Amino acid sequence: MDSSILNKYKPGVRFNSTGQAEIVLWAPEVQKAEVVVSGRDETISLTRQELGYWTATTDKIKPGDLYKFRLNGEKELSDPVSLSLPEGVHGPSKAVKPDDFVWSDGNWYNHPLDEYILYEIHTGTFTSEGTFASIEEKLDYLKELGITAIELMPVAQFPGERNWGYDGVAPFAVQNSYGGPEGLQHLVNACHRKNIAVILDVVYNHLGPEGNYLPEFGPYFTSKYNTPWGNAVNFDDEYSYGVRQYFIENALMWFRDFHIDALRLDAVHAIKDFSPTHILREIRMELDKLMSETGRKHYLIVELDLNDNRFINPLEKGGYGMDAQWIDEFHHALRVTAGEEQTGYYSDFHGITHLAKAYQDAYVYDGQFSEHRKKFFGIKADENPAGQFIVFSQNHDQVGNRMCGERINRLLSFEMKKLVAASVLLSPYLPMLFMGEEWVEPNPFLYFVSHTDPQLAESVREGRKEEFADFHEQGEAPDPVSEKTFLQSKLQWHLPGQEPHSTVLNYYKKLISLRKTHPVLKNAGRKEMRVSSDQTTETLVLQRWYENSMVVCLMNFSEKEQQIMIPEIK
Amino acid sequence: MDSSILNKYKPGVRFNSTGQAEIVLWAPEVQKAEVVVSGRDETISLTRQELGYWTATTDKIKPGDLYKFRLNGEKELSDPVSLSLPEGVHGPSKAVKPDDFVWSDGNWYNHPLDEYILYEIHTGTFTSEGTFASIEEKLDYLKELGITAIELMPVAQFPGERNWGYDGVAPFAVQNSYGGPEGLQHLVNACHRKNIAVILDVVYNHLGPEGNYLPEFGPYFTSKYNTPWGNAVNFDDEYSYGVRQYFIENALMWFRDFHIDALRLDAVHAIKDFSPTHILREIRMELDKLMSETGRKHYLIVELDLNDNRFINPLEKGGYGMDAQWIDEFHHALRVTAGEEQTGYYSDFHGITHLAKAYQDAYVYDGQFSEHRKKFFGIKADENPAGQFIVFSQNHDQVGNRMCGERINRLLSFEMKKLVAASVLLSPYLPMLFMGEEWVEPNPFLYFVSHTDPQLAESVREGRKEEFADFHEQGEAPDPVSEKTFLQSKLQWHLPGQEPHSTVLNYYKKLISLRKTHPVLKNAGRKEMRVSSDQTTETLVLQRWYENSMVVCLMNFSEKEQQIMIPEIK
Repeated sequence: MDSSILNKYKPGVRFNSTGQAEIVLWAPEVQKAEVVVSGRDETISLTRQELGYWTATTDKIKPGDLYKFRLNGEKELSDPVSLSLPEGVHGPSKAVKPDDFVWSDGNWYNHPLDEYILYEIHTGTFTSEGTFASIEEKLDYLKELGITAIELMPVAQFPGERNWGYDGVAPFAVQNSYGGPEGLQHLVNACHRKNIAVILDVVYNHLGPEGNYLPEFGPYFTSKYNTPWGNAVNFDDEYSYGVRQYFIENALMWFRDFHIDALRLDAVHAIKDFSPTHILREIRMELDKLMSETGRKHYLIVELDLNDNRFINPLEKGGYGMDAQWIDEFHHALRVTAGEEQTGYYSDFHGITHLAKAYQDAYVYDGQFSEHRKKFFGIKADENPAGQFIVFSQNHDQVGNRMCGERINRLLSFEMKKLVAASVLLSPYLPMLFMGEEWVEPNPFLYFVSHTDPQLAESVREGRKEEFADFHEQGEAPDPVSEKTFLQSKLQWHLPGQEPHSTVLNYYKKLISLRKTHPVLKNAGRKEMRVSSDQTTETLVLQRWYENSMVVCLMNFSEKEQQIMIPEIK
Repeated sequence: MDSSILNKYKPGVRFNSTGQAEIVLWAPEVQKAEVVVSGRDETISLTRQELGYWTATTDKIKPGDLYKFRLNGEKELSDPVSLSLPEGVHGPSKAVKPDDFVWSDGNWYNHPLDEYILYEIHTGTFTSEGTFASIEEKLDYLKELGITAIELMPVAQFPGERNWGYDGVAPFAVQNSYGGPEGLQHLVNACHRKNIAVILDVVYNHLGPEGNYLPEFGPYFTSKYNTPWGNAVNFDDEYSYGVRQYFIENALMWFRDFHIDALRLDAVHAIKDFSPTHILREIRMELDKLMSETGRKHYLIVELDLNDNRFINPLEKGGYGMDAQWIDEFHHALRVTAGEEQTGYYSDFHGITHLAKAYQDAYVYDGQFSEHRKKFFGIKADENPAGQFIVFSQNHDQVGNRMCGERINRLLSFEMKKLVAASVLLSPYLPMLFMGEEWVEPNPFLYFVSHTDPQLAESVREGRKEEFADFHEQGEAPDPVSEKTFLQSKLQWHLPGQEPHSTVLNYYKKLISLRKTHPVLKNAGRKEMRVSSDQTTETLVLQRWYENSMVVCLMNFSEKEQQIMIPEIK
């Protein structure tokens, strides 16, 4: 029996062509499993099959019904693969038929990845309503701005209504307060009609601390590996086949049922998998199959803190076949160059020479000793094209992990803000903006949660205080549990029409337009580039060329006028 | 600063050409480090260098001197890279100059790996003396038997005088009671003069529970990963550069200073390393450099419980470049076919069809579901040649991990013993014998330790009892701490001259000779082979061919006469 047998069992409640529900549950260590439909006196017995799967085909459950699984005749729990949790993480699952959505994006074809200009959105704070529907109202604005892809921070159901999304506990369920699964489908459809791709941030390395009922169903976690969030997700231990299937199906679902164009996989360095086939590689292989069936194109982008191009190398080179990765090191080098204090992880970055190295080599550390990491770090990624790297001057983490959540524009002079924006948008790598940066939104993006477990809420509050104890003189860390912290983090949509915001917005539009239309900026890769920097004058020259055209970017990070020599290119 | 800087610092006490001692210590988190020479009032101060290295060049220590490091002016500890611990694991290090040994193996050139016929030896129980010197006295016997390589179970210093070797705590020190480093050099030299290669078993996945002082010097272990022995050796966390250097230098030392021909790396599946370059791959790369400098040939063999040919695939295919691996699955399939009860890990093996699969595919599980492991296990290894796999009908583990340490011959009929021996020696894989099997030694090979920490000794004793609680009716588990258990495990060298032992010995000699001389047995690989089996008659036909010759092995594992059809080969 090889793993193709798993194709017989796709966990979840699906409705077949005759309208019957086909229920599959994976619960390898329970003795009895039933479905309990809310509000009716219905109990559906599941039959144990091989490998710990339980199944039933039944008329007793219909789309829209609320249900739970009852395990061993006792505990009643929502479905691990529920698509909707209308009453939150502790409530019942709602049976959903995702095919019911009527798509009208038939003319959409995903952009080439090289043409992605990303725009990171936190649904809850992007608009005052904080919903998918309200994002749709901003699509014309985004289209005019020129970005080609929005990236949604995680939308998997989390406790309460305020969360960055990384505390999600139901990877298949779309946050009810954002608009649920139908709301997400509607948004993606609308984006595609505006020629905008949609990237979804998904978290396969941990689950949140409240409402994670997966361990009741099976060994989803293993004590073999420890991560910052405790036991690692079980990708290679006993019973890992069910867990691997779970996350592979999750990835495929977004592409297939939600028409998502790319996934951004959170912190894949915390995915611990010594299997012969790494789970990311297997997701790649399964996605390739799906793409060849549908003819659609989808991308896999990873957040990776390893400087290890095994993740982005193609399958045939033994890589995991991810299309692209974030490079935080570009950000760190840029920020230090722009004046950020060299503390914490910034301590490894020494300004303009490192920024030049980031342009040249993508990885700043590709074998050197890192004082911060206390080891030699990284390998060379010379052969990986520019389109495999995503760069930014800020993102949710880099902003929100500051005590006061200041966006970069709160920290820099007006001229430096412009320079930093250009550094990203004129780079050969794929640029990403963080929502609102294009009009230098003054509101912070703070860390906020709305755990319903009061003890947990208190411990997050205390943890946050402790984390920033050294910054006491700068004031108290805002209370992450308070609704005020969330509300303070919202964008102010009246600002882009006011000065100085509108000037900056126009500047961003020009830069983006230039990137999309100039033959060099549009086409030149990593090999058609030369970077030189001068530590004394704090200047950097970025030369890029394509065929007979050349672009020379002169960047002066000092606060004075400087003379810059433009090196000759042979 | 890249990792080539580490070449400046090779930990240990070395004597340069002027006779001065060059002392290097890696202790990145201590504030002060000195050397204290025993019996003299000498204290040598070490100077802190970069990356946590401490150095001194001095006349105050000579070969033969006993010394310890004093850390922070307090604790006195033996050298982590000491080559000799004449007073045991808790005593001082002895300064050794390994170059002083006068080698006379200049005519030796390592056998091609394909010609290895391995013979596993536990130094302490191989002879009544239990020393390297006494192994030398048996070399003529071994040469006559026909084996081409001896494999020494680990010789790194362990607590006391009785241990399998896997409780070693000083990876660079050769067990004093076996004869210390000079004794090992003398043995290897003698082997080479008899045209016998020497494989050394080394343990890089854990250290023993008594006398492990490494954590006092630096973060040699990490809590990121858990292994059966607790925290994993730190190959990828903070400070891992020092730990990686430690084990790389260890591997190179055996080849360079002891002329060891191959290492057998214990349980490499328990080495947890997510670095861009896996430590095994790095050892391979460093060994390749050494080999190109010396012109000598050395092999890396791994014990691997993963059925993952990434370990043995060449570097250019993204593999770790190990030359060969043990396949326990051949053993398990063979043992079940020969009548072993299908319990524990044997429960995954179903007799003759699995034995046929082991011949054909090396890995029995190459993607199938394993009930014992509770997951789909293994990948295909079709392209790996036969010479990359080591097979056996017993080894120290398979014998010693039984409650009463019975060798296979205590469990099988006389005819079955012969069949089992032939199954191994006529296979296309590299065969390994366990010392004494060739004369069906009746003494057991038991589990024994001689920890000097009484609490630890007691807990090992209790653990062993518990492990075999289910076998109560077969008697008590022998006391692992008792010297009697050790003495009972010794080979009885008067037996090979007596019947029925001498008949079996002659049979082994004939089989080995056949393997070495017959054109098919000598040359045919995995592709020139066909295996068929019949579950009903319990028979297996192994056909191997080379050029115009063919060998047909008819194996009847039933207790009756059987008719066997020889399939036609096209």
